[in-house]
Amino acid sequence: MARRPVSLALVGAGAIGQVHARTVAQHLPGARLAAVVDPDAGRAQQAAAVADGAAAMESAGPALREPAIDAVVIAAPTHVHADLIIEAARNGKHVFCEKPLALTLGDARRAVDAVTAAGVHLQIGFQRRFDAGYRRAKDAIARGELGRVELLASTTRDPAPPRPGYLECCGGVFLDTSIHDFDSIRFLADDEVSEVYATASTLVTPERGGAFDLDTVAVVLRLRSGALATVTNSLRTGYGYEAGAEVFGSRGKITVHGAEDGVRHYREGHVAVAHPQTWRERFGEAYRAELADFVRCVAEGRPPSVDGEDGLRALEVALAATQSQREGRPVRL
Amino acid sequence: MARRPVSLALVGAGAIGQVHARTVAQHLPGARLAAVVDPDAGRAQQAAAVADGAAAMESAGPALREPAIDAVVIAAPTHVHADLIIEAARNGKHVFCEKPLALTLGDARRAVDAVTAAGVHLQIGFQRRFDAGYRRAKDAIARGELGRVELLASTTRDPAPPRPGYLECCGGVFLDTSIHDFDSIRFLADDEVSEVYATASTLVTPERGGAFDLDTVAVVLRLRSGALATVTNSLRTGYGYEAGAEVFGSRGKITVHGAEDGVRHYREGHVAVAHPQTWRERFGEAYRAELADFVRCVAEGRPPSVDGEDGLRALEVALAATQSQREGRPVRL
Amino acid sequence: MARRPVSLALVGAGAIGQVHARTVAQHLPGARLAAVVDPDAGRAQQAAAVADGAAAMESAGPALREPAIDAVVIAAPTHVHADLIIEAARNGKHVFCEKPLALTLGDARRAVDAVTAAGVHLQIGFQRRFDAGYRRAKDAIARGELGRVELLASTTRDPAPPRPGYLECCGGVFLDTSIHDFDSIRFLADDEVSEVYATASTLVTPERGGAFDLDTVAVVLRLRSGALATVTNSLRTGYGYEAGAEVFGSRGKITVHGAEDGVRHYREGHVAVAHPQTWRERFGEAYRAELADFVRCVAEGRPPSVDGEDGLRALEVALAATQSQREGRPVRL
Amino acid sequence: MARRPVSLALVGAGAIGQVHARTVAQHLPGARLAAVVDPDAGRAQQAAAVADGAAAMESAGPALREPAIDAVVIAAPTHVHADLIIEAARNGKHVFCEKPLALTLGDARRAVDAVTAAGVHLQIGFQRRFDAGYRRAKDAIARGELGRVELLASTTRDPAPPRPGYLECCGGVFLDTSIHDFDSIRFLADDEVSEVYATASTLVTPERGGAFDLDTVAVVLRLRSGALATVTNSLRTGYGYEAGAEVFGSRGKITVHGAEDGVRHYREGHVAVAHPQTWRERFGEAYRAELADFVRCVAEGRPPSVDGEDGLRALEVALAATQSQREGRPVRL
Repeated sequence: MARRPVSLALVGAGAIGQVHARTVAQHLPGARLAAVVDPDAGRAQQAAAVADGAAAMESAGPALREPAIDAVVIAAPTHVHADLIIEAARNGKHVFCEKPLALTLGDARRAVDAVTAAGVHLQIGFQRRFDAGYRRAKDAIARGELGRVELLASTTRDPAPPRPGYLECCGGVFLDTSIHDFDSIRFLADDEVSEVYATASTLVTPERGGAFDLDTVAVVLRLRSGALATVTNSLRTGYGYEAGAEVFGSRGKITVHGAEDGVRHYREGHVAVAHPQTWRERFGEAYRAELADFVRCVAEGRPPSVDGEDGLRALEVALAATQSQREGRPVRL
Repeated sequence: MARRPVSLALVGAGAIGQVHARTVAQHLPGARLAAVVDPDAGRAQQAAAVADGAAAMESAGPALREPAIDAVVIAAPTHVHADLIIEAARNGKHVFCEKPLALTLGDARRAVDAVTAAGVHLQIGFQRRFDAGYRRAKDAIARGELGRVELLASTTRDPAPPRPGYLECCGGVFLDTSIHDFDSIRFLADDEVSEVYATASTLVTPERGGAFDLDTVAVVLRLRSGALATVTNSLRTGYGYEAGAEVFGSRGKITVHGAEDGVRHYREGHVAVAHPQTWRERFGEAYRAELADFVRCVAEGRPPSVDGEDGLRALEVALAATQSQREGRPVRL
Repeated sequence: MARRPVSLALVGAGAIGQVHARTVAQHLPGARLAAVVDPDAGRAQQAAAVADGAAAMESAGPALREPAIDAVVIAAPTHVHADLIIEAARNGKHVFCEKPLALTLGDARRAVDAVTAAGVHLQIGFQRRFDAGYRRAKDAIARGELGRVELLASTTRDPAPPRPGYLECCGGVFLDTSIHDFDSIRFLADDEVSEVYATASTLVTPERGGAFDLDTVAVVLRLRSGALATVTNSLRTGYGYEAGAEVFGSRGKITVHGAEDGVRHYREGHVAVAHPQTWRERFGEAYRAELADFVRCVAEGRPPSVDGEDGLRALEVALAATQSQREGRPVRL
Repeated sequence: MARRPVSLALVGAGAIGQVHARTVAQHLPGARLAAVVDPDAGRAQQAAAVADGAAAMESAGPALREPAIDAVVIAAPTHVHADLIIEAARNGKHVFCEKPLALTLGDARRAVDAVTAAGVHLQIGFQRRFDAGYRRAKDAIARGELGRVELLASTTRDPAPPRPGYLECCGGVFLDTSIHDFDSIRFLADDEVSEVYATASTLVTPERGGAFDLDTVAVVLRLRSGALATVTNSLRTGYGYEAGAEVFGSRGKITVHGAEDGVRHYREGHVAVAHPQTWRERFGEAYRAELADFVRCVAEGRPPSVDGEDGLRALEVALAATQSQREGRPVRL
């Protein structure tokens, strides 16, 4: 019990960064938020304000070099992930990095190599692996309750499209959104993707029309075992945020939706059940569980359960999907 | 296959009578609707029109005496049930009679005795016993899947209150509505009621305020085995028609709602599932199944599965509930 | 009411043929089963036995030429569909034909042309269009409740693989099974498929390994509007028969599963809800509704709601999927 | 943020006491567990061990008098609740006390008066009021979405009966178990009970047979507004722990079950949904939320939302139910 709290620096205080700051401050007795870095000083201060004694900074260097800091949580834009990971690793910090690991396989590989060379740990922010529903499905599959996995379906649907330009910065919808589905499929099937065919349309924001403005996605994956999977995404729904999965095996099937609160409202003409409106609501517990696990891994010197290799593999699938969509043909991995 | 169809006379062409007429005409190849009786000639003609060759009549006598008629379906007002059953029985007709069997135990007993004396069969219109859900629950209980039955709950909720005066004519809410719940409890528990405590309010139509205008009901029953049961009723809902049951036993629990159509509509803020709006919708299949079973029983000379004794017992509970509510104390049977 | 019943000949008395025979005999007061044709005399007699006065025959010719017969229900193997339709049409009979319409587009086109030339009507056995759930979804979409349709998913999962050789005879899994999904997507989206990418594995019966033994399927479709769709199939489940759809639009989403009976069984560790075990159970009502509609169309001289063009279009998609899977590339229509 | 943590003493380290200790230590950054009191030194140490710096004590006096302690959490046996509250109040401590407040109305009144006289706050452990489902129902009702409340049903079902003698010590099933339902009904209806009729059986442990060994309960309540309510309880289920409510109003109905995790397991013959096995699982979040709210109230000097009067009223109903069951008649309050 009396172990010194793990000291964390948060780099990036956008939407997900603010969530991580609150998680550390309010839900992780074993961790301390020492610094928040964001070039936007206001955002850095906002995130730092939730934690006693957290410093707000505009550049990452000092935090990454500060000896009192044990680990870094990276929630900065994707294109700086790799360099931040490398610098943190060289300074002996463990790293938690949001997905995707990088925009290119080269950057991703450099980051993973640096981490290995430094002997530190790297966890990737695939929080669905820490969601109680996905977890329960995974455990049942691992116990063999579904027999051999043969078909999977995974979906992510965002309530509203990102601001113009956001997706270009993130590498597009396959790297920013579908990557969660690709990771879920790898996780649930315990298998690797061998072929990808991706198709997409710009239906939500047809006025944008850039190469990075695809917002409606359907993908077919073939896994090494011969199992098949589909992924569908949309960047706008009429009913909130949705993430879910179906795993079909030789002996049964498991579907994962979000938890329901068990309240049914009978009113004119129908019975209504609440649906989550945001990713914060859908995965609030999972975001807490993933950082709690990261902190425990750091404290106990254990490797994380979702690591740099997982980040690389999912990125590889996302890049193949991007290429498949562009070229209109299946891409082998 | 080539057996002569069972020839039926329908007495009473109100709401449920019209349903029975259509059922016979459109869904029972083994039966023929020969006559429809109603003092309101228009209603009789309306019901007769759905069937080829059905005669519309304004009084029951001729139909009950007609040799070509095998059986009578009674859907007339409650206070004439007993006399109609007795006359039909004396003429050697089998009888299907809507619930409740009569307004008094004396009348009910006279009717049951006449049926026994005539050697004909009497089936009571407790259609829930023919609903697929109630049936599945009953079968599971009979197979012992719940162990010993210990607690039950049954409910009936009508979308809108009946016209003023209707309930007085039917003996009040316990005889007209709760009687379905009392029968369901007897059916599901395979047990008899030994004590009743009933309480009720007039909340839906407070402007009516007569002794027969109770519209909101809560009842506790004790069964001979020591099992306990609750019944709740309302004569107005904001969401349609509802009938359901819960049976709790030493090894598990079964709940029966109506069938759902499996369509989920995700829209702003919630997921919507359809709810039945009327008793016709909720129990359409059950009404067909109960008459089909009656016709088979007549054709094969078999006694029906829900008979005069069931009608008597449920009426006894309903009358005890009426007395309990009036006197403010539990009533033993 | 007094219209003469529509007189039907049934050609083919296999599994679905037996279902159609019982439907006509027991559920369609407006129709009469006059003849059942099957080269297997025992099967023909078995199907004919359910209906008063139905003749069992071993070849179709006499039935197709019999003037007293109004229409033909074709449930024979796929490769004879086109010739039977053409012969029936030339004899002035209306035709109900099971899916798929034919094994090739050429045969299918010949059949449709013959029907047009003869001025008779042709209905294709896409019974999902008559399922209450699919119907309700379609109606909501047609009323605009989902806005523009953007993403669809359809699935069919059979409880157990067919006997060896069956699929080869039927043209393979895309023509025999996925075709239901292709039609559902056309029906629900009110749109046409413009591109297909199909992938498949032989996971259920790896010991068979023929080109027609694919049993696990994942397909991506692009529709003309830019909407996307996925189809997944398996020919063996651990939990019964499954067919369902998801339609996602700009304003909401509708999912269609089969109806549930509303019974929940609480037992050790979980709550259990029944799942349909067979296609007969899942679509029993739909099979009755589609033939009832066909009979009404014949009686009233109306064209059916799902016709030869629908059969052609779905076949076109299924053939493109077959080609796509074989060649490992998307196929445009 | 920098407010000094609220310092708490926990009195009673049985099952619920251990839960409260963990809650304070692991989930309430704003509170500090300073002392745990239990005459069983092992249990006191076990609970104290979860928190840094908590002292284990065998008697309550020193903790209640310790100036550094702000508030007391009472999880001791019911018969000592009142005296502990009074002593805590006299020493200026705020009090959180488990239900029921006391075994008699006299004791309960003494405790509430002492709290009032001392100017401290008393919160009663009706944790369902902090469950997200009950809360959402309450909010909807308060917004008028159900119209006027007319019928309620509340249930509590324990997985396994308590050890022999436990219920006698707690005042019996109505004071120990049904009291949660009585409070839920008051909370959801925003109304007071005016009459109680209770009936009960000993079906789970018939071998015990004492006056306090009733284990199967059905109660009808009348509220002042004329609304009616039922309560059913059992002290043993075949499927885990269950607590739920139904509120029926003039415009609609809301039902509250526990949250579901959204995982559906399709397997042979059925679809399975998980059911909570224990009250810890069902109400884990609610236990955290109620103590968090208590700590906030103490820190901010606010009165709690569920107070001594609530404890008194629920006890009054539970005692009336006890009397009603014993005397076999309804009891007015």
